[in-house]
Amino acid sequence: MPLYDLPVDQLRTYRPDVAEPEDFDEFWAGTLDDARRHPLGLQVLPVASGLRTVEVFDVTFAGFGGHPIKAWYTRPAGVAGDLPVVVQYQAYGGGRGLAHERTLWANAGYAYLFMEPRGQGSTWGNGGQTPDPVGNGPARPGSMTRGILDPREHYYRRLFTDGVRAVEAARALPGVDGSRVIVTGISQGGGVTLAVAGLVPDLVGVMADVPFLCHIRRGAEISPQDPYLEVAGYLAVQRNHVEQAFRTLSYIDAVNFARRANAPALVSVGLMDQICPPSTVYAAVNHYGSRSGGPRPDVDVVEYPFNDHEGGDAHQQARQLAWVAERFGA
Amino acid sequence: MPLYDLPVDQLRTYRPDVAEPEDFDEFWAGTLDDARRHPLGLQVLPVASGLRTVEVFDVTFAGFGGHPIKAWYTRPAGVAGDLPVVVQYQAYGGGRGLAHERTLWANAGYAYLFMEPRGQGSTWGNGGQTPDPVGNGPARPGSMTRGILDPREHYYRRLFTDGVRAVEAARALPGVDGSRVIVTGISQGGGVTLAVAGLVPDLVGVMADVPFLCHIRRGAEISPQDPYLEVAGYLAVQRNHVEQAFRTLSYIDAVNFARRANAPALVSVGLMDQICPPSTVYAAVNHYGSRSGGPRPDVDVVEYPFNDHEGGDAHQQARQLAWVAERFGA
Amino acid sequence: MPLYDLPVDQLRTYRPDVAEPEDFDEFWAGTLDDARRHPLGLQVLPVASGLRTVEVFDVTFAGFGGHPIKAWYTRPAGVAGDLPVVVQYQAYGGGRGLAHERTLWANAGYAYLFMEPRGQGSTWGNGGQTPDPVGNGPARPGSMTRGILDPREHYYRRLFTDGVRAVEAARALPGVDGSRVIVTGISQGGGVTLAVAGLVPDLVGVMADVPFLCHIRRGAEISPQDPYLEVAGYLAVQRNHVEQAFRTLSYIDAVNFARRANAPALVSVGLMDQICPPSTVYAAVNHYGSRSGGPRPDVDVVEYPFNDHEGGDAHQQARQLAWVAERFGA
Amino acid sequence: MPLYDLPVDQLRTYRPDVAEPEDFDEFWAGTLDDARRHPLGLQVLPVASGLRTVEVFDVTFAGFGGHPIKAWYTRPAGVAGDLPVVVQYQAYGGGRGLAHERTLWANAGYAYLFMEPRGQGSTWGNGGQTPDPVGNGPARPGSMTRGILDPREHYYRRLFTDGVRAVEAARALPGVDGSRVIVTGISQGGGVTLAVAGLVPDLVGVMADVPFLCHIRRGAEISPQDPYLEVAGYLAVQRNHVEQAFRTLSYIDAVNFARRANAPALVSVGLMDQICPPSTVYAAVNHYGSRSGGPRPDVDVVEYPFNDHEGGDAHQQARQLAWVAERFGA
Amino acid sequence: MPLYDLPVDQLRTYRPDVAEPEDFDEFWAGTLDDARRHPLGLQVLPVASGLRTVEVFDVTFAGFGGHPIKAWYTRPAGVAGDLPVVVQYQAYGGGRGLAHERTLWANAGYAYLFMEPRGQGSTWGNGGQTPDPVGNGPARPGSMTRGILDPREHYYRRLFTDGVRAVEAARALPGVDGSRVIVTGISQGGGVTLAVAGLVPDLVGVMADVPFLCHIRRGAEISPQDPYLEVAGYLAVQRNHVEQAFRTLSYIDAVNFARRANAPALVSVGLMDQICPPSTVYAAVNHYGSRSGGPRPDVDVVEYPFNDHEGGDAHQQARQLAWVAERFGA
Amino acid sequence: MPLYDLPVDQLRTYRPDVAEPEDFDEFWAGTLDDARRHPLGLQVLPVASGLRTVEVFDVTFAGFGGHPIKAWYTRPAGVAGDLPVVVQYQAYGGGRGLAHERTLWANAGYAYLFMEPRGQGSTWGNGGQTPDPVGNGPARPGSMTRGILDPREHYYRRLFTDGVRAVEAARALPGVDGSRVIVTGISQGGGVTLAVAGLVPDLVGVMADVPFLCHIRRGAEISPQDPYLEVAGYLAVQRNHVEQAFRTLSYIDAVNFARRANAPALVSVGLMDQICPPSTVYAAVNHYGSRSGGPRPDVDVVEYPFNDHEGGDAHQQARQLAWVAERFGA
Repeated sequence: MPLYDLPVDQLRTYRPDVAEPEDFDEFWAGTLDDARRHPLGLQVLPVASGLRTVEVFDVTFAGFGGHPIKAWYTRPAGVAGDLPVVVQYQAYGGGRGLAHERTLWANAGYAYLFMEPRGQGSTWGNGGQTPDPVGNGPARPGSMTRGILDPREHYYRRLFTDGVRAVEAARALPGVDGSRVIVTGISQGGGVTLAVAGLVPDLVGVMADVPFLCHIRRGAEISPQDPYLEVAGYLAVQRNHVEQAFRTLSYIDAVNFARRANAPALVSVGLMDQICPPSTVYAAVNHYGSRSGGPRPDVDVVEYPFNDHEGGDAHQQARQLAWVAERFGA
Repeated sequence: MPLYDLPVDQLRTYRPDVAEPEDFDEFWAGTLDDARRHPLGLQVLPVASGLRTVEVFDVTFAGFGGHPIKAWYTRPAGVAGDLPVVVQYQAYGGGRGLAHERTLWANAGYAYLFMEPRGQGSTWGNGGQTPDPVGNGPARPGSMTRGILDPREHYYRRLFTDGVRAVEAARALPGVDGSRVIVTGISQGGGVTLAVAGLVPDLVGVMADVPFLCHIRRGAEISPQDPYLEVAGYLAVQRNHVEQAFRTLSYIDAVNFARRANAPALVSVGLMDQICPPSTVYAAVNHYGSRSGGPRPDVDVVEYPFNDHEGGDAHQQARQLAWVAERFGA
Repeated sequence: MPLYDLPVDQLRTYRPDVAEPEDFDEFWAGTLDDARRHPLGLQVLPVASGLRTVEVFDVTFAGFGGHPIKAWYTRPAGVAGDLPVVVQYQAYGGGRGLAHERTLWANAGYAYLFMEPRGQGSTWGNGGQTPDPVGNGPARPGSMTRGILDPREHYYRRLFTDGVRAVEAARALPGVDGSRVIVTGISQGGGVTLAVAGLVPDLVGVMADVPFLCHIRRGAEISPQDPYLEVAGYLAVQRNHVEQAFRTLSYIDAVNFARRANAPALVSVGLMDQICPPSTVYAAVNHYGSRSGGPRPDVDVVEYPFNDHEGGDAHQQARQLAWVAERFGA
Repeated sequence: MPLYDLPVDQLRTYRPDVAEPEDFDEFWAGTLDDARRHPLGLQVLPVASGLRTVEVFDVTFAGFGGHPIKAWYTRPAGVAGDLPVVVQYQAYGGGRGLAHERTLWANAGYAYLFMEPRGQGSTWGNGGQTPDPVGNGPARPGSMTRGILDPREHYYRRLFTDGVRAVEAARALPGVDGSRVIVTGISQGGGVTLAVAGLVPDLVGVMADVPFLCHIRRGAEISPQDPYLEVAGYLAVQRNHVEQAFRTLSYIDAVNFARRANAPALVSVGLMDQICPPSTVYAAVNHYGSRSGGPRPDVDVVEYPFNDHEGGDAHQQARQLAWVAERFGA
Repeated sequence: MPLYDLPVDQLRTYRPDVAEPEDFDEFWAGTLDDARRHPLGLQVLPVASGLRTVEVFDVTFAGFGGHPIKAWYTRPAGVAGDLPVVVQYQAYGGGRGLAHERTLWANAGYAYLFMEPRGQGSTWGNGGQTPDPVGNGPARPGSMTRGILDPREHYYRRLFTDGVRAVEAARALPGVDGSRVIVTGISQGGGVTLAVAGLVPDLVGVMADVPFLCHIRRGAEISPQDPYLEVAGYLAVQRNHVEQAFRTLSYIDAVNFARRANAPALVSVGLMDQICPPSTVYAAVNHYGSRSGGPRPDVDVVEYPFNDHEGGDAHQQARQLAWVAERFGA
Repeated sequence: MPLYDLPVDQLRTYRPDVAEPEDFDEFWAGTLDDARRHPLGLQVLPVASGLRTVEVFDVTFAGFGGHPIKAWYTRPAGVAGDLPVVVQYQAYGGGRGLAHERTLWANAGYAYLFMEPRGQGSTWGNGGQTPDPVGNGPARPGSMTRGILDPREHYYRRLFTDGVRAVEAARALPGVDGSRVIVTGISQGGGVTLAVAGLVPDLVGVMADVPFLCHIRRGAEISPQDPYLEVAGYLAVQRNHVEQAFRTLSYIDAVNFARRANAPALVSVGLMDQICPPSTVYAAVNHYGSRSGGPRPDVDVVEYPFNDHEGGDAHQQARQLAWVAERFGA
C-alpha cells in the first residue's frame, strides 16, 4: 500500500491540537482510586508448558472493577533472585494465546508479564480467557464504541486501568524487582502502553509500536480500516453523536496520556500504516512528555518507510532487546 | 451471486438432523419464568413525529433481566378501539431507527410494535438506544459469540426473551386487542420470530423472512459472510471450543423453536442468499411444527430464486399485507 | 471510507468554474416548449394497496416526447380539500417500486408524487415500469453516456424534462394545491431536483440530498464509483471524445441549473461520499441562485461528516419534515 | 480461478433440456423477412489506415430495422479476384475499434468483415460508432435486459439480425466470393456466430470461441459475473418477471440456434470460464445440429483446461488459421 | 471462508491416483548422489542474539549443487551433551528471519535447526539471505514454475535436496545426537518435510502442518490462491504445456514421497484451507508409507474444522511438544 | 480509477531530483563491452505462420552474457530491398507470443523485431520461450527484486543489455536498413525503450508508452500495484535494505537513461495510471535529453486523461503510424 498520509517531513513535526478534557487528571485519578479499592487478588500458578528453559505461570489479578484479568508470567528457568520486568499488552482482538508463544523477554533474561485484553481474544491467534463483565450501549461490533457516550463507561477506561494494575501485579510477582519496569505493546497494546506511561510515574521505559488510539478523531477520519473505522461507522449511523462521542474519546486518547509521560520511550511507526496512520503516531510522539512536569524525556522513533501496520516486527524486537538491556543496565 | 447451496429440489425437502439439548424446554421455561419475575414496566410516551396519519409512541418495557428495551408503537391516527397487533423484531446490527420509518403496519390499519435488539443498533440505519448491560467472555466482535460457552450467558437467550416480552408488552399496550398477535422479522428478526413462535403458544401468525439462526452449524460451515462467519471465525481461534460452542448454540437454534411452533407461518427464502443459506431456512421450514403437539400448522414458503439476502423486500411485504388481512379477518 | 476530497473548510467555500454553454437557456426553453406540445395526458387510477391511512393512485403523465411516465400519488386517506404537494425523483437505477413504499409525505399530511426515472428501475429495490423509448449511440452500460455526443440526445435532457412535467402533473392532480410545490430527491433524484429548481420559477422549496450530476467533470475525475465512473470509463475508450462529451454534459450539469434557482433550498452532503464527492455538492451549493435574477435564496446545508453516499437518511427526513412544515405553513 | 462447474467428464456429455418456444422458427423467419424489406444499403469507403499490406474499407450496411451498422472490411493489398470471406462479430461491450486492429484474416489471405454490436462499443478497447436507435423498458444497465419482457423487443433480436445481414453484406462486397463464408466470434461474438449458424443455411464453417448466450438460464444461475449477472440482477429486482423473462430469452438462446446449424464447427471452451460457464458451452456443442434436418455436422471442441474467459486467444487463432485454410481449400 | 472441498467423511478416506513417474527413485537417488559429491561445508558461527536462555548459531551448509544454504541453530544455553534435534523447513516466501524468532524447540530442550528456502525469503516476515543461483525458463513469478518443463531444473528438486542436506548438517552439528532427528514444517515447509521423510530412511518422526505440494494437479485445479494458482496461471498462458508440466511436477509431488516414508507422522489439516485444500493433504496422509517396504507407519491427523491455512498454529505446537517428547523419550 | 497523482499542471513541469550514481556511464559502458565480447549469434529461421501478406522469422540472438534471446522478425511479404526497422520490447510478464500477433509494423511496410523479456513470458498472453539462466538472491516473486542488492546482478542490467543487443541484431537482419531504427515499447517495454535510447546513440526515434521504471523510488512509494509494489513489498520485509536497494535501482532507473537520449521521442501517459503513475512518466519526459550533450531532442507527449495503464492502445498506435512514417521519410 502506498504512502497516503502527510509527507514524511511534515509527519516528523506534526503536533496537532488534540482535544483534552479539563478534568482529565481527576477522571483518571478517580478511576485508579476506585480500581485500587479492590484487592489485587494476585494468583500465580505454575504451568506445565512443555518448555525447559523458561518457567511459565498462569497469572490472574484484579483489574478495573476488581474483575479478574489473565496474563502469562514467564521467566528464565532456574534463575534465582529478582529480575527486572517487561510488561506487555496485547493487540486488538488477540488473547494471551498459549504460554509457549510468550517467551521472548524470558529468553532475554527478564521477568515478563503478558496481559490480555478483556472481552477480546477470539479474533486471531490462539485465544484468550478474560471476560469483560460490563455490558454496552447500542454499539457497533468491536471495542471502540462500547460506552462511547460516557467516558466512565468506555471500554478503554477499563482496559487502561487493567494496564496500570498489570504493572502493579508485575511488581508483586515473586522474583521481580519492582523498581525496574518497562511497558510495551503493539497497536492497541501500544495505546495501552502510552496510557500506562501517562498514569504510572516511575517506569524505566516505554516501548510503543505502531500505537493505536492516538489522535482518534484523525484516525477515524483518514484510516480506511478497523478499528478506527468502527468509530466512523458508528457515527455514520448515530449521526447526532459526533460531539459527544469525541468528547468521550478525548478521555482515552493516547496523546493525552503521552503528554504526561516522563519515562524515555522507543516508538515505531510504519509510514504506510493504514490501520494506525503515521500522523496519529507522530501526534503522540511530538506531544510526548510535554506535560510531564519535568524535562522532556527522550523519545526514539524508528520509522519503517515501506511498512503497513506490521511495522518493524522482529527487527523492532532486536532494537528493543538492545534498548531494554541498556535501560535495565543488563 | 450464483446458486451455491443445495439444488432447489433438494432444498424443498431438506430436513436435517439438528442437535437439540435434552433440557431445551426446561431451559426456556426457566428463562421465561425468571424474566417474568421482573415487572413489565411498560412505558408508552407519545412522540411528536411530524406525521399526521399515524400516531407514534416511544415504548419501553422490561426484557430479560428486567433490562429496559426500546420499541416504537405506531397505529393509525384517530382510530378508537382495540386493534390487532403486528410485532416486529429488527435485523442484525440495526436499531429501531426513527419513528417515521416504522409506519407500514399502522398504515395498513393495525397496531404495530417494532422492537430493537439490545446492544446493537449502530451498524446501519438510523440508530438504536437499547443497551445490553450484560458483558461477555472473550468474544469476537458481534453478538454471535457473546456467551458462546454457556447457554445461560448467550446473547440470544436475552434477545429471544426480549422478543417474548415484546409480545407481552404489545398485549398490554393501550388500544391493542391482545388476542390477535402476529410476529414478524427479517434475518435476525426472522430468527427471533421463529423463537417467539416456539415460546408463545397463542399467536395468530408467524412471518419470518430470510431467517437467521436456523441450523447454525450448517450456517457456520457454508456461509461466507457475517454473522455466521463470526462463529466460524471464533472457532478458528478458540480451536478447542467446537463442541462446547455448538452445544450452547443448540439452545438458541431457531430450528428447535420452529419444531414447537403451532401458528401458521409465512416464510420467505432467497435461493442465492449468502448470509442465511437457503438450506438453513428450509431446515426450519421442514421441521416447523413437528413437535407442536398438534396438527402441523400451515407453512407458506415464498422462494425468491435470484435474490441474495435482500429477499423479497417490498414484494414480500405485499404478500404479507394480504396474509395478515386474512389472519386478522380484516 | 475516509475523507478523501478537499478539507472541510475549503469545501464550504468551494465555488469552481463550471463550464456553461452560451445557449443554455435557449436550449432548455426550446426543450420544454417541445415537451409541452404534447398533452399532459394525466391518468390517475386508484390502487388497492392494502393500506388504510393512505390513498394510493397509479399516475401516468406525458414526459419528454410525450412518452408515458409512471409515478405514485399518495395522500392521507379521508382528507378533503387541496393539499400542498411534495414531488420526488427517484435515485439512479431505482424504480417507483411498490406503492406502500411511498407513504412518508402522505403520512405527514401532504400530497406526494413519486416519479420514476425512465428506462431504469431494475438495478435495486422493487422495480419500475417506465420505458425510455429513445435509443442511444455507442454507450457504456448505464444512463450517463446515452447521447453523450449531443445534448439534444442525452438521457438527462429527457429525464429533466420529465421532472418538470412531473411538477405540472402534480399541479393537475385532484386534491392538490398547485401553488405550493416542493421538489426533492436523493442522488440522481437530487440532481433532477436541482434541474427542476432552475427550470420551474415558482417553487416553494427545493430539497436535494447528496445530489448527483453537479460539476460532472470533477465527479468523473475524482469519484472511484459509478455512475460518474461511467463517464470516465467511456472516455477511456472513446479517447477522442473528451471535449465533445463534456460540452454535452455542460447542458445537463446541475450546477448550471442551481445558478438559476430562486426557491429556498435544503441540501445535504456526506463528507465521505464516494459516489457524489462533497466538493461537487458544494459546487452546486455555492453557485445556487447566483443567476436567479433576484436576491440569493436561502440554502441550508446539512453536513454528515462520517457518511458516505447514504447521507442523512431518516435523520435528514426528520429535518425535512420540519422544513417542509415551515415552508408550507403547516 | 479454480474449476467450479461440472466435472469434465460430465461436461463432455452435458445435453440439458433447454426451453425452446414452439414458434421459434416463425419468429425468426418473420424477423429476417422484416429486415430484408430494408435495402442493404451497402457503403464501402476506402480508409487511409497507414497500412500497406492490407487494404481497409469502412463499411456500413442496413441491419435490423434498416439501421446502419458499421464494420471494417480488410483484405490483402494488391490481390485481384474474389476471396473467400471470414465474418466476425465483436464481443460484449467492444466496438470495431480502429481498422489496423482487424488484420489477422486479411494477413492470412482472406477477405474479412468485422461487425460491431449496436449501441455498445464504449466499455473496453478503442471504441465503436454504431448506435442502437431502439429504446428499452425499465432495464438494468447493459444489453441483456433491454426488451426482456418481449422477444420482439429484445436487444439480441436486433443484434442477431444484424449478424445475418452482415453475412449478406459480406457476400455483396467487391472482391468477395460469396459462396465461401465462415462466421466467427468470441464470447458475445460466439453467441452471434451460433445464431447466424442457425439462421443462414449455406455457411462453410462456424467458429465460436467461449460463446456467450448458450443455455442462458443456467448461465444466470451459476455465473458470478456480468453479463449473465445482468439477468440475475434484473430478476432480483423485478421478482415477478422470472417466467416471462426466460420465455423471452428462449428466443435468443444460442442453444436453440445451434440445434439448427448444419455447417461444421470449431468451438473453444475454457474449463475455468466464469463468464461463460463451460457447461453452457457444452450445452450448445452437444445440441449442435440436432435439428439441422441433415446429418450431424462435425464439431471440433478445443478445451483450455486452465483458462478463464480469455480462452485460447492466439493459440486458438492458430488452430483457426489451419481450420479455415482447410475449409476454404486454401 | 466456508467448507468448499470434499465432505469430511470423504476426505478421511480420499486416496486418489496420483501420477508417479517410473524412474522416480532413480531420479532422486541420482539427485542426492550429485549433491553429496559436494562437501557439506558446514559453518557454525555463534551469534550475539541478545538472548540468554538460548544459544544461537548462524549455520551455513552446502545444499543442492553445493550452494550455500543458511539456517539458524538454536539450543538451550548451558546444556552440555548431545541433544536430539528438530529440523524445520520454512514456509513459502519466508526467510529464516531473525534468530530470536526461532527459539521454541530450544526452549523445549532440544537442538533445533531452522533452514530457509533458497531464493525466497522476501515476501513476508523478517527476511532471508539464501540465494538460488540457478536461473529459470520463462516462468510466472514465484517458485512453482521455475523449471516446470524439466524435473532436473525444477526449483523443488533443489529445495528438497537442500532439505535432505539439512538433516545431514543437523547430524553434523556440535552437540547433536544424530540418531534422533525429527523433521517438521508448515505449508511449503510441510511439503519439504514429507519429501525428506521419503528420502531419509532413519528419522524418528515427521510433523507436517497443512502441507503444500501434495497432489499438485488437484491443488492447481481447485485452489483459488497462490502458490497453486501459479501453476494454473502458467498453464493459462503456456497452453500447450499441460502434460509436460504435470509430468515434471510428478517428480516433486509430496504424495510420491509420502508413499515411501517409514517414520511415524503427525499431520495437521485445516478443513477450510484455501491454499492447501484438505483433500490434497489427505491424499498424502492416505498414501503415507504405502511403499515404505515395511509396516505402515502411524499417522496421526489433527483436523482443524474451522481453520483456513493458518491451521492449528500454537495449538498444534502444543500437540507437537508432547508428541516430540514421546518420540525422543524425553 | 480517479486521478490520484499530482494535478495535471504540476505533472507537466514535474522534474524531480532522481538519484544517479557517479559511475553510471562506466557501469553501462562496461556492461555493454562485456556483452559484445559474446558473438551476436544471430539465427533467423523462416516460420510457417499461416499468414500470406507478412513473412515471419524466428530470431535468436545473444543478449547479456551471450544468453540466447528470442524474438519475432516480421516484414511485408514479397518486398525486396532493405527496410527501416521498428524494434519493440515486450511488457512485464509477457512473452513474444505467437508470430501472427506481431504484424502491425510489417503491415505498415517496415521490418519489425519483437523481443521478449528473459525469464518472463508466462503471466499473460500466449507465452514466451526465453530463459534467464541467472539466479537470484532472496527475492520477492517477480523481476524487480532479482539482484536488488547489487547493480551488476540486477535483472534489468541483463534486460537492458538484451535491448541494446536487439538493436544490433535488427541491424544485422537480412533486408533491414540498419541506419533507420526506431525503438518502442509499452510499460516495461517503454522502460527498456528509454534505456536503449540512452545507450544507443544513433536511433531515428524513440516511442515509449506508459513507461515503467522511471523514478522508481516514487513509483514504489505511490503506486498501489505490482510491479512497483514488488519493491515496496520487498523493503517491507528486508527492512534494512532501503538505501542499498535504491542505490542499485538508480543504475537502472529509466530517468537516468532518458537524460542521455538524443533521438526525438513520442511518449504517452495515462493520467489515471495506477501501475506507472503519471508523475514518474513526466519525470522521464522532463529530464529527457538533458545530458545528451547536444540540443534537447523533441519530445511529444500524448496525455490520455481518463486512462489507467491501458493508455492509448490502438489510438496511440495510430499516432505512431504517422510519427514513424514521418521519421522514416516513408
